Amino acid sequence: MRRSEVTRPYELSVAAAARAIRARELSPVELLESVLGRIEEVEPRLGAYTAVMAEPARRSALTAEREAAEGRFRGPLHGIPVALKDLIDVAGTATTASSRVRAGHRAQSDSAVAARLAAAGAVLVGKTHTHEFAYGLTTPQTANAWDGGRVAGGSSGGSAVAVAAGAAPFALGTDTGGSIRVPAALNGVVGLKPTYGLVPRHGVTSLSWSLDHVGPLTRTVEDAALVLPALTGHDPGEPASLAPGGAGGHLDERGTDLTGLRVGVPLNYYFDRVEAEVEDAVRRAVERLADLGARPVEVEIPMTRYVQATQWGLMVPEATAYHERTLRTVPDRYADDVRILLEAGELMPAGDYLRAQRAQTLMRQAWIRLFDEVDVIVAPTVPAVAVPAGQETLAWPDGTVESVSDAYVRLSAPANITGVPSLSVPVGHDRAGLPIGMQLLGRPLAEAELLRVGLAYERSVPVRALAPVL
Amino acid sequence: MRRSEVTRPYELSVAAAARAIRARELSPVELLESVLGRIEEVEPRLGAYTAVMAEPARRSALTAEREAAEGRFRGPLHGIPVALKDLIDVAGTATTASSRVRAGHRAQSDSAVAARLAAAGAVLVGKTHTHEFAYGLTTPQTANAWDGGRVAGGSSGGSAVAVAAGAAPFALGTDTGGSIRVPAALNGVVGLKPTYGLVPRHGVTSLSWSLDHVGPLTRTVEDAALVLPALTGHDPGEPASLAPGGAGGHLDERGTDLTGLRVGVPLNYYFDRVEAEVEDAVRRAVERLADLGARPVEVEIPMTRYVQATQWGLMVPEATAYHERTLRTVPDRYADDVRILLEAGELMPAGDYLRAQRAQTLMRQAWIRLFDEVDVIVAPTVPAVAVPAGQETLAWPDGTVESVSDAYVRLSAPANITGVPSLSVPVGHDRAGLPIGMQLLGRPLAEAELLRVGLAYERSVPVRALAPVL
Repeated sequence: MRRSEVTRPYELSVAAAARAIRARELSPVELLESVLGRIEEVEPRLGAYTAVMAEPARRSALTAEREAAEGRFRGPLHGIPVALKDLIDVAGTATTASSRVRAGHRAQSDSAVAARLAAAGAVLVGKTHTHEFAYGLTTPQTANAWDGGRVAGGSSGGSAVAVAAGAAPFALGTDTGGSIRVPAALNGVVGLKPTYGLVPRHGVTSLSWSLDHVGPLTRTVEDAALVLPALTGHDPGEPASLAPGGAGGHLDERGTDLTGLRVGVPLNYYFDRVEAEVEDAVRRAVERLADLGARPVEVEIPMTRYVQATQWGLMVPEATAYHERTLRTVPDRYADDVRILLEAGELMPAGDYLRAQRAQTLMRQAWIRLFDEVDVIVAPTVPAVAVPAGQETLAWPDGTVESVSDAYVRLSAPANITGVPSLSVPVGHDRAGLPIGMQLLGRPLAEAELLRVGLAYERSVPVRALAPVL
Repeated sequence: MRRSEVTRPYELSVAAAARAIRARELSPVELLESVLGRIEEVEPRLGAYTAVMAEPARRSALTAEREAAEGRFRGPLHGIPVALKDLIDVAGTATTASSRVRAGHRAQSDSAVAARLAAAGAVLVGKTHTHEFAYGLTTPQTANAWDGGRVAGGSSGGSAVAVAAGAAPFALGTDTGGSIRVPAALNGVVGLKPTYGLVPRHGVTSLSWSLDHVGPLTRTVEDAALVLPALTGHDPGEPASLAPGGAGGHLDERGTDLTGLRVGVPLNYYFDRVEAEVEDAVRRAVERLADLGARPVEVEIPMTRYVQATQWGLMVPEATAYHERTLRTVPDRYADDVRILLEAGELMPAGDYLRAQRAQTLMRQAWIRLFDEVDVIVAPTVPAVAVPAGQETLAWPDGTVESVSDAYVRLSAPANITGVPSLSVPVGHDRAGLPIGMQLLGRPLAEAELLRVGLAYERSVPVRALAPVL
């Protein structure tokens, strides 16, 4: 994305804005005001934010501007506005989780990721809507950036929509079954669910500790590669955090020549019950990767019939355990869909949970063996585009009917169960103009490889415009 | 233990027998026949063995003898008879688990530990009784080696009794809540529960994979130090197996001078509701360690009120999951006590299990911090000596009444939950002549330290005789 006479600052990618700030062609204050103006313009139609923190952001931007004037840059994101999914604690502000349960909440201290972004120079512009407590795939408060009558996807719907619409240069989300990648795909932005344990979760409201991940939503793959290293690194306070030295992240130095890269194309599961236009777009993207030198290899995905039971078997009781107290004291403050799921968790027997844990272990091992045969796997992120708000089911040509939630999570959940990284990249639109996403999956800590492949693809296709916010 | 004119081969320690075999002063056949003779003499009163494999053992001993004659020694246990708890698979033989459920069973291949012992030169002499499927603390088929009217302890009761009585130079057991250390203490032998993951469990019938350990029972600490290295080392087939390089085991080179060693003496938990003679014996042992140069340090044991709930919360549903099929098809083949426990597991909610997992994580962290202050912790292994067979409860001076199982597991379970190594060492007898055990606990992979301290203690006290088998 090149900055032209007609490009307004909020339209800049993170990489372009960071370069301009460092070259002193753009001031952090100017960038922030442009973003705040865009928020004002589109927010009434989108409902992406739970809170816009204009005044604290202005103070931060002013500090960043003064520092830049003195030639001091905190880090690679110096002066770049960021929006955080409202599950992520920021000291002194509410973490609403888009829930009435959190009325009067105030976080005591910064989450690990909020602190790391601040250290890298980012300027917090606001908090974004989540499906209540991340326990759903639509984010009902927020409208899709490309069609206001359609769902944003979720649970990081606010983050995806804000980034797609130019209301934030980048954002963070969380992903337990697809909650970064699903809204990224449905709004035409890039979403990265890193390797399990790579990005610390301290200070982020938990949905399911066996499956929860934190990661970035950006407009370009290049931006994701810029943001990720600011988030990674061992957190000694978190049992699941990967040890020092286990960091992926920085863009692979081999560049975008994909010669010899083995791209796995699933024979089963990932193209079953997928809309024809979605399948076509992803298969065209595979051809594009082949044009860039990659070698498509057919792969059989293992243990797929355990995906749904494992995902729900882990998530349901863990979510209920987290909400145990408030479920007893203030059950009526939850939305009905979330309360019903939480109550269901109280009835689940221990045997189902431990079988899910064992299936997770076996699935992880089977997937790691899969990456002996291929370097990355390409698949649709979501089997369908954004549905109209209120639509609850999808009917497939084979006669089956699936809930929207089950369909939206179906192709993204394997990466949560196995912990492998997954990068969702936009691969065009359907005839109605709705975005389609492709996910690239890799072995644990292969973020650099995924970003390299995503970047190669991104550079081979036309520059995308911001969502028109219709 | 020095070999004198009147010492018969079965009385020899593993170390003494191994030295004699290597010096060609003792033949493996002579040793085996001596052990088989002792088995014939005491087994009618003890009931330690499920099967004595005299003929296969004779063939193995003959091979070992021929190899020794040619100067070839397979390993440190060349020609030493061993008994295996009958949960441990040996190819071509039944693993009965002391249960009618296993009627007609035949193991297809060796367990990892059986294969490793064979590779180290050991000669399998038989399989020993366990409390059915290791799910109990008494081993009702077996009598205590020191008093035939009292319980053997369990679940590795057969192994402990065989070793105590001279019916096996050493044996293996398994330990989920204390099942190596409890019978070791109650029969006056040494029992080592290694660090979680140090000794592979492949081919060993599972009770609770979060808590199960395999380890040796021997008559001396020196013997435990000799046997352990033959068992350790990474097993790539087992998810919980520690990675290569993580091996503890070999006896620490610093010898038995304990100058400067910080010995933690618990202020809470480990001396509560403990028989006076047990407490006295353990405190005398602490004084003995102080005489050897160690410095006693009072320590507060963390999170003790979670021990019982965590132990049961992990074990009950995992045991039920393992027995799921046979519990449905042949429930009547289980003993009542075990069937009732297994059926209870079907009713346990997932929330209880995952809370137990979280408590385990927190308890492990708290215990590891404890070892910043001390090098080892000393405590009674079991709060009471062996009770008369059939006795179901223990009444304490504070007015509380506790089931024998709850009492026997109470002081050993923390090492299973936290995974830290624990070595039980005999520290004398009560006035009725019943053995008392002290446990030494250390940080993960500190087996060498525990063995060093145990050896220092052992060398400072009179040589113990075999159990008289009354």
